[in-house]
Parts: sequence; C-alpha cells; structure tokens
Amino acid sequence: MEFLKRYQQYGALVERSLAEFIGKTVPRTLYEPAKYILAGGGKRIRPVLMLCSSEAVGGTKDAALDAAVGLEILHNFTLVHDDIMDNASSRRGRPTVHTKWDENIAILAGDVLLGLAYRALLRSNSPHIQHVSKIFTEGVIEVCEGQAYDKEFETRRNVTMEDYLLMIRKKTGTMVSVATEVGGLLGGASEEERLALKSYGELVGQAFQVQDDLLDVIADEEKFGKTIGGDIVEGKKTFLLITALERATGEDKKLLKGIVERGGTSRRSVDRVRRIFQSTGAIDAAQEQISTDITRAKERLGLLRRSDAVDMLGWFTDMLLNRKS
Amino acid sequence: MEFLKRYQQYGALVERSLAEFIGKTVPRTLYEPAKYILAGGGKRIRPVLMLCSSEAVGGTKDAALDAAVGLEILHNFTLVHDDIMDNASSRRGRPTVHTKWDENIAILAGDVLLGLAYRALLRSNSPHIQHVSKIFTEGVIEVCEGQAYDKEFETRRNVTMEDYLLMIRKKTGTMVSVATEVGGLLGGASEEERLALKSYGELVGQAFQVQDDLLDVIADEEKFGKTIGGDIVEGKKTFLLITALERATGEDKKLLKGIVERGGTSRRSVDRVRRIFQSTGAIDAAQEQISTDITRAKERLGLLRRSDAVDMLGWFTDMLLNRKS
Repeated sequence: MEFLKRYQQYGALVERSLAEFIGKTVPRTLYEPAKYILAGGGKRIRPVLMLCSSEAVGGTKDAALDAAVGLEILHNFTLVHDDIMDNASSRRGRPTVHTKWDENIAILAGDVLLGLAYRALLRSNSPHIQHVSKIFTEGVIEVCEGQAYDKEFETRRNVTMEDYLLMIRKKTGTMVSVATEVGGLLGGASEEERLALKSYGELVGQAFQVQDDLLDVIADEEKFGKTIGGDIVEGKKTFLLITALERATGEDKKLLKGIVERGGTSRRSVDRVRRIFQSTGAIDAAQEQISTDITRAKERLGLLRRSDAVDMLGWFTDMLLNRKS
Repeated sequence: MEFLKRYQQYGALVERSLAEFIGKTVPRTLYEPAKYILAGGGKRIRPVLMLCSSEAVGGTKDAALDAAVGLEILHNFTLVHDDIMDNASSRRGRPTVHTKWDENIAILAGDVLLGLAYRALLRSNSPHIQHVSKIFTEGVIEVCEGQAYDKEFETRRNVTMEDYLLMIRKKTGTMVSVATEVGGLLGGASEEERLALKSYGELVGQAFQVQDDLLDVIADEEKFGKTIGGDIVEGKKTFLLITALERATGEDKKLLKGIVERGGTSRRSVDRVRRIFQSTGAIDAAQEQISTDITRAKERLGLLRRSDAVDMLGWFTDMLLNRKS
C-alpha cells in the first residue's frame, strides 16, 4: 500500500509537470492536438520508472523529472504516429488525433512532440547530459525500427520467435530501458548500476509486451478496455501465435497457417484458436517467459544496494506484470 | 572562383559524410526510403553554411561536421513529412517518398531521420553540446510551428504581412540560423559572435524565402525546375500576393480577392496576376526586402573579425540571393 501510494504520488507529479510544460497555444492546429494526447491519461509507467531509478542509485527524483517528462512526451509521439499507421480510431476511450483532426495534423503534432520531448530532456542539469541524450536518441531510432519491423511482419508469413523478440525489444523494451538507464545516470549511477538498470528495463519491457499478447487472449474484457481476441482476428504474429504454429499439428496447424496466409480470421474462430493456444502449451510458454524475465529483472535489482527505492522498483515490477488489464 | 571551388569541396565533404553515416540496411522499409531522400542531392546550403560559420570564428570545419550532417538530415526529415502534407508527388526530379513507397513508410522514415539527425549532432565533441542541442531542438519545434502556420494560412483569408513574415522566419529562417549559430558555437564563438551569426542566418533565411516567392513569378522556367506561377495557381499567400492585395484597387483588387476566396485560380490568369504584381510595385517591394535583408545580414558579418572564412560567407550570401533558380 505504501508503494502504491508512492506510485500514485509520482504519477500525479508527472501529470502536473506535463500539464505545465507546454505553455504555448498557437499555432493551435499544432498545440491543441499535442496537448490533447498528453492529457489523455495513461499509466505514466515510463516516467515513474525513471524517477524511481534515479532514487534507486541514491539520486533524487527531481534530478530525473525533466527527462521523465521528456520520455513520456516521446512515448506519446510514438502513439500519435503509430495510430495513423495502424488505422486506429480510438485510444484510451477517446478518438485518436488523426481521427479527431486529420492525418496531416497528426503527423505534425507527432513531430512537434518529438521536439518538445528533447526540450524537456535538455532542461536536465547533469554532467552526463550528452550520454543521456545519446541514450534517448538511440531510443527514438530503435522505436522506429521496432515499428518498421512490426509493420513488415504484418505481411510476412515466416516470422520466427527470434524476429518477434527483436521487434518487441525495439518497440516496447527500449522505452522502458531508456527510462531506467537514464534515470540511473541522472541519479548518479556507477557504471555497474547503470548497466544493471538498463538490463532490468529491457527485461521488464519484454515481459510487459508478452503479457500484452497474453492479455489479448485471457484478460477480463471490461478491465482490459478492448475486445478480447483482437490479435487473433487480425492474424497478428504474437508470442502465442508463433509458439502455437511451431507446436501445433494436423487440423490445428492448418487452421493457424490459414490465419497467417489470409492475414486474419473471423471473430467466430477466436475460441477455437484460444483452445489451440491452450492445448499446444503456448499460453503456458508465455507465462513461463514472463516469469523468467521477471526473475532475471529482479536479479538485476539485486545488484543495486538495497534501499526503499530499490524495493519500490521490485514492487513496481510485480504490479506491472500482475495486471489483469 | 576560389570561393565557388571551396563551396563545392565542402558540399562534397557533406555528401560523403552523409553517405557514410547510415550504416544499417534493415529494417529495409525504414532505411531504404531514409537513404533515398538523403541521396537525392540538393544544394547542401545549410551544412556548408555551418562549416563556414565555424571557420568564421576561428574554428575548424571538422568541429562542425557531425552537426552539419545532423542539420542536413533534419532538413530532409522536414522534406519527407512536408511532402506528405502538401500532397507533392515529386521533388528534385524524383518521386517523393510517400509516392514511391506509401504514406506510412514516409511517416516512419521521416521519424527515423529525426532520430538520426540527433545521433549525428550528438557525436560532436564540444563543451557547448547542451547549448548546441537546445538550439537544434528549438529549431525542430520552430519548423513544426512554421509548417503549421503555412497549412493554416491555406484556408485563412486574412493573412497579413506580419503573419507571413512570422511563418517564413519559423519555416525557412530557423534552419539557416541554426546552421550559422551552431556552427559558430562549435567553432568557439564568443557571445557577440554567436549572436551576430544567428542574426545573419535569420536574415539570409528570410531573404531566401522571399526570393523563392519572387522566383515563382520571374524565374527562368528551365533553370527553376518547376513551372512558373505555381504559387499563383494555388492561391498561396506569398510576399507578392499579400503586398499586391494591400495595394491594388478596382478590378485588380477584385481579381486578387477572388483568388484568395476561391483558394486559387486557373493557369490562364497567371499573366494578368503577374502584371498586377508588377504594376502595384509588389515585385519591386520584394526585391527591396531581399536587398535590405542582405545588407543587414552583411552588417552582421561585419561584426566578425575579417578573414577569408568571413569573406566566404559574404560570397555565399550573394551567390544564394543572386540565384536564378
């Protein structure tokens, strides 16, 4: 409960800082959509992880606050552009930027968010600012690479588990490891501590994405906020589909192959595919993968000097990966 | 001739550095279009200005080379995204990225170019790296604001000269002043020198854009590389149209107002509009504006200690603003 309260406090701090950050209102076709996406809520996982990572190496959360705001803005930039590419009409229960305005405005709003992300980051006062900016920048590039692979995989039939893991490391893992690594650096981490935090972030990010794949199949529909089985209908090459494809035989294999070949299936097939995920052990495999990643992530935390802040990260890890939504 | 040779040498250096910069080839849907736009030629004005600005304060061109490559990549990022928003099908005689591939690929290729621009910039080895990165970042934000105004003006009837100048300062001026200011900082400029170079860049950038408006009406069609009168047909609120609208009377004013209201006109009207630009003195006014800006820009160069490199900048200014294409 103590930790939950702290998470909520840090989240509220990020929320306030974000709201204060963009002072300008014109040109309004630029700043209205930019403010709209930033005000859309979200769990603020990355910035809170960054604040905690600074504290976990003996720094203050204030030392990482500007960068945390920058990372959350960066994350929102990816959402605006990804939503265009994915043709997504709603996010967090509201119309996406390109739906509420138009594609051109969404492209430009995303672009300015990227600029604003760097503006926030570069307010940081740290002897490591160049290193921190480089990590942030490599994060931008990796996220683009991850998204490019994700789009390429939509039309590729032979996506292996290795391909998939590379893609999610880039698309999801990077933003989490940027949070923990940059937080560490701004908090004054030693080289060992920085690497431990980076690796911790990569593992948590990976587990988080596999969890996301799993939730598409086993989540509580109301809490999850989207319809169950969406990935199956879209024929998305998730951890589950790739594993099940490797393991299934006979009619089951034929069905899964058909989904990949046709690039999706009807909603009626969701239940049968779900049963195949179960019977082939794909769901168990995903759960094992998550549990292994969490264990390894916590080992990285074990390399840091035990403190309340390190325990907070441990709690945060469990909280993230035990979510039912 | 000496200076022309130097410009060509510096341009070739930028060209080589750009070609070497992106090593990666996968994901190919990301790096093929990114390399395609970077290999598309262009005058490399901004990076060459940056190299010269470093030298103009006693620095080396090598000190500014990484940042110069970064700025040219940044400029290309704006081209890729602007071409989507402007529905442009060709650039420099080749299909635009979203035409050759598709819009999603162009969005993502633009995004990664922005990341790559920072990667190049952050290779710079300078005690001023944070300041330099901030200038670069404010440039990104200003360019987005300029583009947003430009698009807003397309559907606004009451665009004043003040609005127009604000827009071109942001959209065109900023990238030029980033070149000269960052070049100066990396070359070790004093505060006075930095501000002189920044102001020089702003003035050159502004003159360059007014020149562009003028060329649409008076250029040699073949050298200009695009059809004359395009801005008139599109009803673009250029320096010329805004000035002529203020000054015209009777039937002429009615014609110009009609163009603004209908958001363009037919190609048949181009000659008549051109004569109105002439008779109202709008063309003279544009030429005066350019000439005043150049004079003021050169005054800024007068604040620097005279050297071969400063003379080179003077030559470069004349060369840019005497272009017929």
